[in-house]
Amino acid sequence: MKPTNLLIHLHHTIDAFAFKPRHLDQLRAALPDIPITVARDTDDFLARLPDAECVLAWRFKAEWYHNAPKLQALFTPAAGHDWVDEDPSGRVMTRYGTFHGRIMRESLLSMMLHFNQRIGTSLDDQRNRVWGRMGYSDCVALFRQQVLIVGFGALGKSVAELLKAFGAGVTGVKRSVEGYAAPPVVDRVVPFDRLEEELPHADHVVLLLPGGRETEGIFTGRHFSAMKPGACLYNLGRGNCYREADLLQALHDGPLAGAGLDVFAAEPLPPESPLWHEPKVLITPHSSAISREYIDLFIEELLGVLRPTPN
Amino acid sequence: MKPTNLLIHLHHTIDAFAFKPRHLDQLRAALPDIPITVARDTDDFLARLPDAECVLAWRFKAEWYHNAPKLQALFTPAAGHDWVDEDPSGRVMTRYGTFHGRIMRESLLSMMLHFNQRIGTSLDDQRNRVWGRMGYSDCVALFRQQVLIVGFGALGKSVAELLKAFGAGVTGVKRSVEGYAAPPVVDRVVPFDRLEEELPHADHVVLLLPGGRETEGIFTGRHFSAMKPGACLYNLGRGNCYREADLLQALHDGPLAGAGLDVFAAEPLPPESPLWHEPKVLITPHSSAISREYIDLFIEELLGVLRPTPN
Repeated sequence: MKPTNLLIHLHHTIDAFAFKPRHLDQLRAALPDIPITVARDTDDFLARLPDAECVLAWRFKAEWYHNAPKLQALFTPAAGHDWVDEDPSGRVMTRYGTFHGRIMRESLLSMMLHFNQRIGTSLDDQRNRVWGRMGYSDCVALFRQQVLIVGFGALGKSVAELLKAFGAGVTGVKRSVEGYAAPPVVDRVVPFDRLEEELPHADHVVLLLPGGRETEGIFTGRHFSAMKPGACLYNLGRGNCYREADLLQALHDGPLAGAGLDVFAAEPLPPESPLWHEPKVLITPHSSAISREYIDLFIEELLGVLRPTPN
Repeated sequence: MKPTNLLIHLHHTIDAFAFKPRHLDQLRAALPDIPITVARDTDDFLARLPDAECVLAWRFKAEWYHNAPKLQALFTPAAGHDWVDEDPSGRVMTRYGTFHGRIMRESLLSMMLHFNQRIGTSLDDQRNRVWGRMGYSDCVALFRQQVLIVGFGALGKSVAELLKAFGAGVTGVKRSVEGYAAPPVVDRVVPFDRLEEELPHADHVVLLLPGGRETEGIFTGRHFSAMKPGACLYNLGRGNCYREADLLQALHDGPLAGAGLDVFAAEPLPPESPLWHEPKVLITPHSSAISREYIDLFIEELLGVLRPTPN
């Protein structure tokens, strides 16, 4: 595509998510023929919207499209569809970021290896000046383990690629696999209705499901019960896909040996949540994609569309 | 090679390092024509040694070779040469394990990601019920970082392979690179006398040096001072390669942002060591190779020699 102007509204309270002068320099150098405007704030953005052909934004409301008659494309760095509504008329192309996997898979691996290598115990021993060498014999390396990725899209594929490099067995779970050709980075991709049969075989279960009504409570108490004793669960998708009460039960009386949680039913996680003090839980504050190179990757992806490979 | 008998002495106080009935079953199934004896203890082992053609052992003293006239080969699972002396006469082939990389690289990655993803802070926040989402913007992903591996042998190569899958830049350092062809998993391999020039560019410095007089204090205070501000150091080799006083100074007043230490000048690390309570240090008790599949990998490697690929 070849827009004749670009309007940017990418302010964010999380510094890593904010558009910086270096990004503007990079865009101007790569797109010398396209006037680029950075909106001062939301009012300024809305005032400029009627002339915009291409927009980069963190938020966009459905009703704003009426006010953007020249708009051809809207790019958002977000992976989730929570903050940018699609054009109800279908006229404007909306593109969500798909680069997050490269960042998020490192966050996921930090959690998996934290549990596999029992670093929590290493830290406790360190505090107590204990040389706990006899305690590591039950550690198992990832290359001898099975990982089940529930919600197998672009993110899952990126995660699978790294897990395969470790040598782990990887199975993906998708809503439907009709007509779907599994990529080589995964051993198998099965439909969601086979999830319960797969769970007893997985040492690590990774939830990468999107939010919304369709995934609400989709991972049930039965699923938790079907997990392999000693398995770990990770949630880096959205916090609505199970009831936290079911998760707690699986930790207390069920098969779960650990849970790495980045997302929650309510965020920020309320101070009264019992999850904070669960010894088997590792909590990160919806930070699995927060990394200094976040907007750099977004710009790379954007330029792949606005300025296809030069020849 | 084709020995006509096999004598095994692989007792170990670390359970993961001990030879188990399942390993004996596996060996008997793979080598049906070779009588296999498991020694009850060291006395029993030494009594049987005069008839042994092939030995698997954790320890072997130089003087024992006199007592083993039929011995052709000695296999030890250890990577280090600390516990098994080579035959002073040079007659007996001694093979040290080279499979450790697949296990140890996961321990190393658990440390690297612990520092990169600031999990120590996540755990502190969790204890204090703090939703610290604003604190992650300075995290950098491994795929944008440079790793320097000091001591680039079989282990370093295995580590490099995994780091490359993450997308990191990897440089190896070897004593000498004369006539050495760097494997494709590494960007460059440089000789040790170039170490000081390389250090300012590395976000992670991984020490994988063997023990012994040649490596004693080889990583000096000058090397620590040359490191990039904010870099992390890992030692999974032997604890003699630097003075711990230099390490502490680099942590207090120097460039070091973190250190993941698995080995120490004195082991077990003495209770009075100041390292225990260093907030930027993650200590593991010489456990980076302890994993349930340790002896399985040793058996695989052994069978690769005793029973070459069938055709």
